[in-house]
Amino acid sequence: MCEASAYVIDGDNQELIMEAVDSVEPEDGGYKLINIFGEQKFVKGSIYSLSLVDHKVFLKKS
Amino acid sequence: MCEASAYVIDGDNQELIMEAVDSVEPEDGGYKLINIFGEQKFVKGSIYSLSLVDHKVFLKKS
Repeated sequence: MCEASAYVIDGDNQELIMEAVDSVEPEDGGYKLINIFGEQKFVKGSIYSLSLVDHKVFLKKS
Repeated sequence: MCEASAYVIDGDNQELIMEAVDSVEPEDGGYKLINIFGEQKFVKGSIYSLSLVDHKVFLKKS
């Protein structure tokens, strides 16, 4: 499976907010993350960068 | 490997612009895509959405 871990960048810090993320969809000025277990999380911000071979997605708060 | 195909959304169309994408990094008001073969491509826009289990990354032109 090719899901990824989602991190929120806050200054110099990276906080892991969800593992096994499948989809990241824009919603209400932010992004809704859904993982392979069907869990959902909302981040007010945008997708900042991707490192897919490392299974990492970075978001940045707005 | 967990690289993805990158599509640019233009209205109702989705154009495949690169396969086997590893990293997507912000650069100069857009994004630089690098695939696992080391090829690079620049998109003036932002990352719109992700569907990682489907190996798809969608960008939107600005």
